Amino acid sequence: ARLQQALKLYVVTDERPDGEALLPIVERAIAGGATAVQLRRKQELGRRFVELGRALRELTRRAGVLFFINDRVDVAAIVDADGVHVGQDDISCRDARRLLGPEKVIGVSAETVEEAVAAELDGADYLGVGAVYPTQSKPDAGFTGLDGLTEIVRSVRIPVVAIGGIGLANAGEPMRCGASGIAVVSAVMSAPDPEAAARALRSRVDAERS
Amino acid sequence: ARLQQALKLYVVTDERPDGEALLPIVERAIAGGATAVQLRRKQELGRRFVELGRALRELTRRAGVLFFINDRVDVAAIVDADGVHVGQDDISCRDARRLLGPEKVIGVSAETVEEAVAAELDGADYLGVGAVYPTQSKPDAGFTGLDGLTEIVRSVRIPVVAIGGIGLANAGEPMRCGASGIAVVSAVMSAPDPEAAARALRSRVDAERS
Ligand code: NI
Repeated sequence: ARLQQALKLYVVTDERPDGEALLPIVERAIAGGATAVQLRRKQELGRRFVELGRALRELTRRAGVLFFINDRVDVAAIVDADGVHVGQDDISCRDARRLLGPEKVIGVSAETVEEAVAAELDGADYLGVGAVYPTQSKPDAGFTGLDGLTEIVRSVRIPVVAIGGIGLANAGEPMRCGASGIAVVSAVMSAPDPEAAARALRSRVDAERS
Repeated sequence: ARLQQALKLYVVTDERPDGEALLPIVERAIAGGATAVQLRRKQELGRRFVELGRALRELTRRAGVLFFINDRVDVAAIVDADGVHVGQDDISCRDARRLLGPEKVIGVSAETVEEAVAAELDGADYLGVGAVYPTQSKPDAGFTGLDGLTEIVRSVRIPVVAIGGIGLANAGEPMRCGASGIAVVSAVMSAPDPEAAARALRSRVDAERS
């Protein structure tokens, strides 16, 4: 239940070339009510990834917000993130667990019930499920939709975070499908006012949860 | 001295799209006398990297040959490689050490005396130094040359493996500059007969060392 609470508004960083520029945006997002942050840098080299990870670790720790690293289990361990988020092509949940130990939180991306159930069996602590809406930011992601999300929520016991195309206009729907939270990229990272964007999304989520 | 012996003929895999195809070539290279193998896959996703790493770990363990993973410290730990090889933009030697512990071997790429001395201070177990000759396979690598190699060998106490443009025609020179071994990519991986290529290179190295 504690993890579930912390997954309510999960902000994933975007791939802007200037990684340093992520820091003030994430800081505003947290001020607005983000409960979890994931650093995703698909092309980042290890040295820089660790530097950014350390900076965000400090920021999220001060704020009492969960902090995840996407994909790189080594970076997650080195910066002492709260956990790692892995996709189906990344290091497996079991291997990540072996490296990180039982205390760290491991999230797994799942597009289908089959992937979701397998991830739960592999020891995932939560699932990132989507895309729930059509999206540009991850064009290679499969489309799960709200029906797929609903089916997955009913098939597993671990918390599910909905991702993909979520913005203020549609943030309530995934929650009504049983998601524990919503993950957003551009809705916060590209917002003119990331704090206001996070605050509006958070109140939408809280409204569905109360 | 045991590490030094095991660095004599260090074969680095190439980036061919079909990773599975590396296995028989590495097997032949080991039969020909390779003493160390490094799996380098700059674009490989984690899941596949681990699979390839496990296959090569088995192969190298059976042969009693050192096995390194390039860059990905997590993959090195998961497949129980003998160690990791990191470049100047990768996870730092200190951070890799924190993750891998004192027993694993950490190699660091160095192009200059400054980088070499810093790496030794950071706890590197060996250095990969080059390019000692002009090369196509790593066009972004700085050029160190045999003079640079000689200078670096004199500046550090840890073993130095020369890399970059080394083939049968010039394999003796880096050894005469004080290198503990030579690292090759295409000279073995692209050879029509990788076993014969490795055998010829190995005897060239052994001749210089005796
Ligand atoms: Ni990945």
